[in-house]
Amino acid sequence: MDKEKKKPLSSLGEFGLIKFIRDNNTHPQRYHQVHLDIGDDCFCFQSHKNSKYLVTTDILIENTHFKKQWATPEQIGQKAVEVNVSDIASMGNAKPLYAFISLGVPKNIEENYVKRLFKSIKKTCQKYCIHISGGDTVSSEYITISITVIGISDSNIITRSKAKNKDLICTTGTFGDSGAGLDILLKNKKKENLKQFEKNLIKRHLLPQAKITIANLISRNINITSMTDSSDGLFKSIELLTTDNKKGANINLNSIPISKDLQKFTNNNIQKIYNYALFGAEEFELVFTINPIDKIKLQKLVPSISYIGVVNNTNEVEYFENDQKRKIKYSGFKHF
Amino acid sequence: MDKEKKKPLSSLGEFGLIKFIRDNNTHPQRYHQVHLDIGDDCFCFQSHKNSKYLVTTDILIENTHFKKQWATPEQIGQKAVEVNVSDIASMGNAKPLYAFISLGVPKNIEENYVKRLFKSIKKTCQKYCIHISGGDTVSSEYITISITVIGISDSNIITRSKAKNKDLICTTGTFGDSGAGLDILLKNKKKENLKQFEKNLIKRHLLPQAKITIANLISRNINITSMTDSSDGLFKSIELLTTDNKKGANINLNSIPISKDLQKFTNNNIQKIYNYALFGAEEFELVFTINPIDKIKLQKLVPSISYIGVVNNTNEVEYFENDQKRKIKYSGFKHF
Repeated sequence: MDKEKKKPLSSLGEFGLIKFIRDNNTHPQRYHQVHLDIGDDCFCFQSHKNSKYLVTTDILIENTHFKKQWATPEQIGQKAVEVNVSDIASMGNAKPLYAFISLGVPKNIEENYVKRLFKSIKKTCQKYCIHISGGDTVSSEYITISITVIGISDSNIITRSKAKNKDLICTTGTFGDSGAGLDILLKNKKKENLKQFEKNLIKRHLLPQAKITIANLISRNINITSMTDSSDGLFKSIELLTTDNKKGANINLNSIPISKDLQKFTNNNIQKIYNYALFGAEEFELVFTINPIDKIKLQKLVPSISYIGVVNNTNEVEYFENDQKRKIKYSGFKHF
Repeated sequence: MDKEKKKPLSSLGEFGLIKFIRDNNTHPQRYHQVHLDIGDDCFCFQSHKNSKYLVTTDILIENTHFKKQWATPEQIGQKAVEVNVSDIASMGNAKPLYAFISLGVPKNIEENYVKRLFKSIKKTCQKYCIHISGGDTVSSEYITISITVIGISDSNIITRSKAKNKDLICTTGTFGDSGAGLDILLKNKKKENLKQFEKNLIKRHLLPQAKITIANLISRNINITSMTDSSDGLFKSIELLTTDNKKGANINLNSIPISKDLQKFTNNNIQKIYNYALFGAEEFELVFTINPIDKIKLQKLVPSISYIGVVNNTNEVEYFENDQKRKIKYSGFKHF
């Protein structure tokens, strides 16, 4: 029993901890007016008939999510806001409204560093017409940025769990760039020795862009059956849209959009490419499903969308390369 | 210029940083439906005519706000929720609804520690009928707890800035206990050597209670003209209710409610008592103002309320002891 109590958190793991929290959570009551409970990209409560508020929160901590020597305060501030906006984008036709910014910074940090960080947070909020509405400032050993964003939607929101048999799995952007960018940063190369494709991949890691314009466009015009962002990597996104919903999928690895930069970085090593594309996290692309009947309409609306697989009823995700089944095991980042 | 850029944050200070953030903040637009902007205990947006949502956020970081050797995970979790509920309470007739909990914990922390922490957060949320609606779990060097609470009010909310000339300044509870409790903890005495009054003072520091029941009761029955909680100490609360509003006040030091425990701890040293009472933070009592006409009604409703001073038009707070003016200089805790 005592031994049991002393187990480190890593034995439970990040997903185990999340499961523990969900299994032990409070139960909402009628007056809470919960429209979509904890577990999706956003929580959603309904204020009255046509107005739903979406809430998401993310915490970024120095040395876990970023290193000061890798990124400018402008880049750190921008990313902190973008990752929250990406969660709002994942709900479909939604608009972020308010941001609550809690900053923990070391006592001996330069005043100007903190000002630059805040100004960048503000600038990114302004880009999305978000009003900074509150927060907290405290001292801490490591820079800590906790942001909560509240958004609004006056139409149906798109959850993770409504994908249907035969739906097409679609994505924006390319995959694997952010993970490759992180690996380049981890090598601590001198800036002047970086090749252009390496610089591009680093930029993808440091400056992700929330896909809210596309999210709003497609959700207003197409019947999106489910959607999430690829913040934990494409593999995890596909799992969330299918197996959590007791569906499965066939994924065509050849269809996953890959950038020229990633091809150069991996010397076209297909194994490495798939690894980055499936497990490189913090990509913030949209991963969503549509009824195949809507494909032509979507192709016209956003020609750059990729179609990477099909939902089925098997409760299992299978990966295919040149029509050959390929075994893929989870190897993404875990906090614990 | 370069030297200017290298200034440490301490030269700006905590209140300077907050001022910088306010002066450089975004400007809300009509569609933001801001009812009460950043700067009060809560931010408030109006969803429709009779429904206002209140939002507050607080971040607690190990070694800044608590030490593991001083407090159990149960105590840390409880306090993290209570401090947010206290901000909702300060708005008057309001009810907390949703909590968003971001946890940063070290990789090597015991699984059981995190479970106990979360269970305590949950239990305290349940006490206030709050539904845990989202969050984030990440690894960090130090335990980090960032909580955002959304509440609702269907009546007028009470801000910090509506105190009028001749209003009475009122408080719940006693002051200075939490600050004294912190000082006892800082001495790292062995538990078995602690006297009962020391244990009581420590408890006041570790387990503050949000005064939401009283806040709801008085705001439903009395015309409260302004209100805040004493999270940054009584001195700061009085400043917020008066000078921020271009009012002043005369405060009668003899009327500030002091516990027997604090008297024992300070050996009745009046200088020490006032110092703890005015500058000991994290007390979470209500500090509010009423029209003197309402005093009798309030005395009947909540006999334990103290009346410590009177608002005036001087834009300055003056302190009196036995009718003698006393000079008081800010000496509270600053993060930077």
